[in-house]
Amino acid sequence: MIVSKKELSEFEQRYRTAFVNSLAGFRQAVLVGTKSIDRKSNLAIFNSLIHLGANPALFGLMSRPDTVQRDTLQNILDTKEYTLNYIPGTHYIKAHQTSARYEKGISEFEKVGFQEFFDNSSTAPFVAEAVVKIAMQYEQSIPINLNGTVLIIGSIKQVEINESLVGTDGYIALADAEVLISQGLDAYFVAKSMGRLPYAKPLL
Amino acid sequence: MIVSKKELSEFEQRYRTAFVNSLAGFRQAVLVGTKSIDRKSNLAIFNSLIHLGANPALFGLMSRPDTVQRDTLQNILDTKEYTLNYIPGTHYIKAHQTSARYEKGISEFEKVGFQEFFDNSSTAPFVAEAVVKIAMQYEQSIPINLNGTVLIIGSIKQVEINESLVGTDGYIALADAEVLISQGLDAYFVAKSMGRLPYAKPLL
Repeated sequence: MIVSKKELSEFEQRYRTAFVNSLAGFRQAVLVGTKSIDRKSNLAIFNSLIHLGANPALFGLMSRPDTVQRDTLQNILDTKEYTLNYIPGTHYIKAHQTSARYEKGISEFEKVGFQEFFDNSSTAPFVAEAVVKIAMQYEQSIPINLNGTVLIIGSIKQVEINESLVGTDGYIALADAEVLISQGLDAYFVAKSMGRLPYAKPLL
Repeated sequence: MIVSKKELSEFEQRYRTAFVNSLAGFRQAVLVGTKSIDRKSNLAIFNSLIHLGANPALFGLMSRPDTVQRDTLQNILDTKEYTLNYIPGTHYIKAHQTSARYEKGISEFEKVGFQEFFDNSSTAPFVAEAVVKIAMQYEQSIPINLNGTVLIIGSIKQVEINESLVGTDGYIALADAEVLISQGLDAYFVAKSMGRLPYAKPLL
């Protein structure tokens, strides 16, 4: 099956959204915890976490002003703090439910049934059930003028993780914790390992 | 285990790179095919594919000027064309080997053992073994001044995919083709399905 640019643009809108979103492949599912300026908690699922660099440790998130994620974006811009939470795959139904358009001021933690957790690394709420909890400091937003999306860049303030997942070389065995992966708008997975490989050198 | 920003910055460099890269989680492994201006083929693995939008259909790639990916970036800027190729997980050893620092002008297709495939959608080479073959048109680069990386944005010119993977709603069942997923610098996976869910609506 070959789909040209023209055919893609002529697809029925929902079909095209599902096609292109799922075409982008598998990605880390992350629950982003924020507080509004009036201290209401918010939780939203994102599948656009981007590794930007290790030193300084910077992660990006893509946000689209016209979606449910707009509350998260506004809270990040207002408070400069947010949390990234990776949860076990078994919680995928609750994680997906955070994508519903709850009214501003309604806490998805309460509605969906995740427990809030706080420590002094962030004013934003963590997900208690998360295997990996990352406190983020907002650094910069970069507008993508081609389509009105925004790249939100933050630096890592703190990482909380079970020590047993971290190898002697620094590698974090997220697959051992069966961390949730997503694809497209509504498909959820966990990882099945193929293997790890040594640093690649040119073959003679 | 709690790691503060300060402790992270004091990690030994290779340990930190492995820690932060693997912390960013699971992502689509994609082989990017390009041609240099003197018509030499190049193939490099990326794990930074970003979905930017469905209409127009835009994908991003993060590139770091100081890595083996610099040849790919230069070729994209020179020719404005590139291909994205998703391969079956069974090819993970060859896919990883494309990350070796072969000299400029050496074709990773030949060295690593993937077969080139061409059609009239692109001057850049596809990977014949790929389950998904996407012809991309370069649109724009956005420099991330915080750490010297570059976001390369392209639009989809053509998608080639086995029709049996595409559902009636447009969803592409990449897991059925056991498409390769990566994490960190050297870990490879395929997806194990948890399930698909209907569009989420607020619960009453």
